[in-house]
Amino acid sequence: MAGCGEELKLLGMWASPFVVRVQIALRLKGFSYEYVEEDLQNKSELLLRSNPVHAGKVPVLIHNGKPVCESSVILRYIDEAFSGAEPSLLPADDPYGRAMVLFWAAFIDDTLLKARSQALRGETGEEKEQGRKKAAAAMATLEGVLRESKARFFSGRDGPGYLDIMLGSLLGSMRATEEICGLQTFDPTTTPLLAAWAELFCALDAVEPVMPRVERLVEYAEATQPRTAVSSTTN
Amino acid sequence: MAGCGEELKLLGMWASPFVVRVQIALRLKGFSYEYVEEDLQNKSELLLRSNPVHAGKVPVLIHNGKPVCESSVILRYIDEAFSGAEPSLLPADDPYGRAMVLFWAAFIDDTLLKARSQALRGETGEEKEQGRKKAAAAMATLEGVLRESKARFFSGRDGPGYLDIMLGSLLGSMRATEEICGLQTFDPTTTPLLAAWAELFCALDAVEPVMPRVERLVEYAEATQPRTAVSSTTN
Repeated sequence: MAGCGEELKLLGMWASPFVVRVQIALRLKGFSYEYVEEDLQNKSELLLRSNPVHAGKVPVLIHNGKPVCESSVILRYIDEAFSGAEPSLLPADDPYGRAMVLFWAAFIDDTLLKARSQALRGETGEEKEQGRKKAAAAMATLEGVLRESKARFFSGRDGPGYLDIMLGSLLGSMRATEEICGLQTFDPTTTPLLAAWAELFCALDAVEPVMPRVERLVEYAEATQPRTAVSSTTN
Repeated sequence: MAGCGEELKLLGMWASPFVVRVQIALRLKGFSYEYVEEDLQNKSELLLRSNPVHAGKVPVLIHNGKPVCESSVILRYIDEAFSGAEPSLLPADDPYGRAMVLFWAAFIDDTLLKARSQALRGETGEEKEQGRKKAAAAMATLEGVLRESKARFFSGRDGPGYLDIMLGSLLGSMRATEEICGLQTFDPTTTPLLAAWAELFCALDAVEPVMPRVERLVEYAEATQPRTAVSSTTN
């Protein structure tokens, strides 16, 4: 168990949704960890040394001196390296269930995020409009996944799992983007389950203190280059 | 164990490196499976029903009637659903080892493939040249990973594992691209370990019969739209 002689250090940056993923996973498991805020314009030696392949992108989780990079890899590592630490993020003893979760996680990081990126950075108005439509369709698809879970969370339990963290960690950034550019996070009238899930997720003790506030994200985006945070973090 | 009352059906298309991944994994494990070649211009009802989210992209592995999509997800499923079936693709009982493998697998599917795509489809000559440089750098990085494995395979054993399959499955397509556009797969003089590994990998009994022949891939690419295969397959 982490906390009993285990050393966990997370190198992060508060505005990165991918860092938020790791924070939520560690807090859900109830692990003690040291959080180190990085200045991405002036990265620490430790960060550069821990993720040399991706030039010091965050998040990096350092466990007893050994670094693990990329949020989706870190989440699985947290689940596997401390087995027995509840809750399980991925369904234990259910290979098919795990495959389904990983499939939908890839859908979030590929299909949904690419659609949103196209909506924001498409070269023409038409391209942006297509991106908006794809993003809305992806959210509608995720509404269906939540409906099929027959629970308030994607995990199918009465608490969050891997997929809840993968999508939920994006909510702060998505809402800030909505504020700045009008790109809707989701439409509560067509995705009522997602709307209720988002409320529930953001109010969790493991989530609320580490989810970046929308006002602060908007302020940060306005004060810096629009892509600073994104280009220095990995998913 | 697959083959003892288990039904495995793979929906694929011969030229797709992502389908090749699954074929190699199934063959390495020694599983019996039915391979169904799909016409991607006229997809079967079964394929469309099995991967509706991605409009019938291949590969899809159907295990006892239940579909699993996306090659990296399928590979992990094959490793976990039939535990005890040797060889293990991911290092068993070694969460840190598994995290490292998944990190490098993401490097192949993101960093390497994106660099190659930029080299082939960049909008300017300069952009293409940058893509070429990034692809060469990614291969040099992978040479270092292979060197660190202290074995002839990325698995660190004397036989292939997850990472060998993830990269090795691309060799046919990469060599065909080299033939068509001159984009080098890798430079044997700067990556001698990769060159020896590629020879060894392609000659394996589990690989040789399912690795698409370069001449056939070149012929196929010349006869069809250049992106047909890629746009209808997922990684």
